[in-house]
Amino acid sequence: MCQLLGLNSNLATDICFSFTGFRHRGGITDQHVDGWGIAFFDGGAARVFHDPQPSCSSPLAAFLSAQPIRSTNIIAHIRKATRGRTHLRNTHPFVRELWGRHWVFAHNGTLKDFAPSLDGSYLPVGETDSELAFCWLLQQLRARFGAESPAPEAVFAFLREMALELSRYGICNFLLSCGDSLFAHCSTRLGYLERRSPFAGARLLDVDLAIEPAAANPAIVTALVATTPLTADEAWQGMPPGSLWWFVDGAVRGRLETVAGVVDQAAPHP
Amino acid sequence: MCQLLGLNSNLATDICFSFTGFRHRGGITDQHVDGWGIAFFDGGAARVFHDPQPSCSSPLAAFLSAQPIRSTNIIAHIRKATRGRTHLRNTHPFVRELWGRHWVFAHNGTLKDFAPSLDGSYLPVGETDSELAFCWLLQQLRARFGAESPAPEAVFAFLREMALELSRYGICNFLLSCGDSLFAHCSTRLGYLERRSPFAGARLLDVDLAIEPAAANPAIVTALVATTPLTADEAWQGMPPGSLWWFVDGAVRGRLETVAGVVDQAAPHP
Repeated sequence: MCQLLGLNSNLATDICFSFTGFRHRGGITDQHVDGWGIAFFDGGAARVFHDPQPSCSSPLAAFLSAQPIRSTNIIAHIRKATRGRTHLRNTHPFVRELWGRHWVFAHNGTLKDFAPSLDGSYLPVGETDSELAFCWLLQQLRARFGAESPAPEAVFAFLREMALELSRYGICNFLLSCGDSLFAHCSTRLGYLERRSPFAGARLLDVDLAIEPAAANPAIVTALVATTPLTADEAWQGMPPGSLWWFVDGAVRGRLETVAGVVDQAAPHP
Repeated sequence: MCQLLGLNSNLATDICFSFTGFRHRGGITDQHVDGWGIAFFDGGAARVFHDPQPSCSSPLAAFLSAQPIRSTNIIAHIRKATRGRTHLRNTHPFVRELWGRHWVFAHNGTLKDFAPSLDGSYLPVGETDSELAFCWLLQQLRARFGAESPAPEAVFAFLREMALELSRYGICNFLLSCGDSLFAHCSTRLGYLERRSPFAGARLLDVDLAIEPAAANPAIVTALVATTPLTADEAWQGMPPGSLWWFVDGAVRGRLETVAGVVDQAAPHP
């Protein structure tokens, strides 16, 4: 299993504080030592940093912890290998282009016996079940919507079908973004936090570091999504297993159930 | 116009020395201040670093100058914008997946009125003529060879056709790699160096730094390709305008003319 971290906000903000705690899970406060990566969107383009080294001791992770790269959509991942050896090609998040935008995907869980038919439009570079699922998902999106980018509502509804299908093969917590929306699927364990003004400050759980209320720009509204809470003293909310979430401008825009038989809750939440 | 730097070698080596000189061209020894990027292959997977800041003052460029990331295929680019504003999405090198490998492309020059028909398999994220040419090139490769990766000889011969076509629209110096071969097209200005044992040492032209003969591993054979020579005291060779080069294991594997009417020189060189 791996660790996921996502950020979605209304204004570009950096993730230095949260990433400082998060990266300690790659070898210090948790045992995910098989590489890590982080993607920062600027509009429809993403810059992605990959490193097969443990994040707790990676010079690049230390560098990025201190570099305020500002973005409205960020996805980070720390890997504990279950399928595919420790290698650059198996390091999340994965990135591909669709409809003239970068799409970024990170996965926590293991899919067993997932062997979809791929038409060659997106092929895995590595051997993970995660990259395979991502390639299949993009292939399905293109097959469903064709050459033109659909409205995000339509993508969100279609992702529910994809999440239902993927969940048949195992655990499928994932984060997906194309630079405006952040989609998050909770298969077993994922939580989120909406951080907005008035901000009372926060203390990291993984490392002895706190952020003061004065350090926060009151105009910024941020949603953080993570496998487990990153901070104490903030209202992290667990996502129910079998739920797909859509974040825009730092807030929940929609939620759909991905447990077969459960009535959809497509209305904005809360 | 921009600055190109490529490395192809038989064994993984770092580019710290050459990159230290190269990055000074992004604002100190030359005026290419509109972002930079560098891609390092490990097998068929590339890790790519992009930065819209000038390379001479970029903290990330300084970090990478000191980080020995070892690779057998590296492509770097420093941008002076001619088409498309300074932005992450317009920063070279560009990367896409084809046949389950990453392909990396960087371009020097400007293509005028190049407006190919794109089928949606690869679409530009930014507005540069360079990324458009790369998307078209990959689309053509897939259309020509289908779902299976062809032999590199076939790719090399096909790239000659592509280079001929692109050259109709303007200046098209480029570097292209999928992790084993490095292809280099000289439209107007590009040179290369084969560095092998015995290595007599080298001194950078852009900054006061030298590398001693003892620092080099005698088993490593390296080809460096650059817009203009990076070092003094080494035998840089200019590529004739209208020539396409194929490097494998640090040496020239093939060369083809891309000036219409010139007899091909497909034989290994020298």
